[in-house]
Amino acid sequence: MLKVIAQDFIKPEAVEIVLPLYRELVEKTRQEELCIAYDLCVDQKDPGHFIFIEAWPDRAALDAHCASEHFTRLVPLINAHQRQNATFILMDDLPV
Amino acid sequence: MLKVIAQDFIKPEAVEIVLPLYRELVEKTRQEELCIAYDLCVDQKDPGHFIFIEAWPDRAALDAHCASEHFTRLVPLINAHQRQNATFILMDDLPV
Repeated sequence: MLKVIAQDFIKPEAVEIVLPLYRELVEKTRQEELCIAYDLCVDQKDPGHFIFIEAWPDRAALDAHCASEHFTRLVPLINAHQRQNATFILMDDLPV
Repeated sequence: MLKVIAQDFIKPEAVEIVLPLYRELVEKTRQEELCIAYDLCVDQKDPGHFIFIEAWPDRAALDAHCASEHFTRLVPLINAHQRQNATFILMDDLPV
């Protein structure tokens, strides 16, 4: 299983603009057949710091998500309000 | 619910030393009555970058975890092999 932490940094004055876009992105992504988990959190110390915690079966499923209609439509609308570039960590579970 | 991302950065030569310490920390923490989730992942691009993804009912439960025998014993042993300070993000779920 592939896990992902994606972090967005939104300008303070744009938080209310991006919230409905995030909500649609989460709702549509969770309907993807290959989506295992797609949770969106907000940093308690920074209301413009949004953190996705994702789980996918493999890289192909993540790539399909990133090519989906909802992703390619909504993410540029969100990114227009960034104050700095998003970051991404692709992770494996701890080896046992 | 309180979610936490804690990130450790371990010296490359010490990864094999910390792995059994992490495994014991994960096993014992998951036995805590108030632990909702406690997953440990490794950055695919950096085998010394360890990421905890945690969920707790509230801040008091997280504080109790940080005061537990296993935490106060194992974390200093792990931190002795850090290459830089750990980082912590305390998060809320996206408001709906």
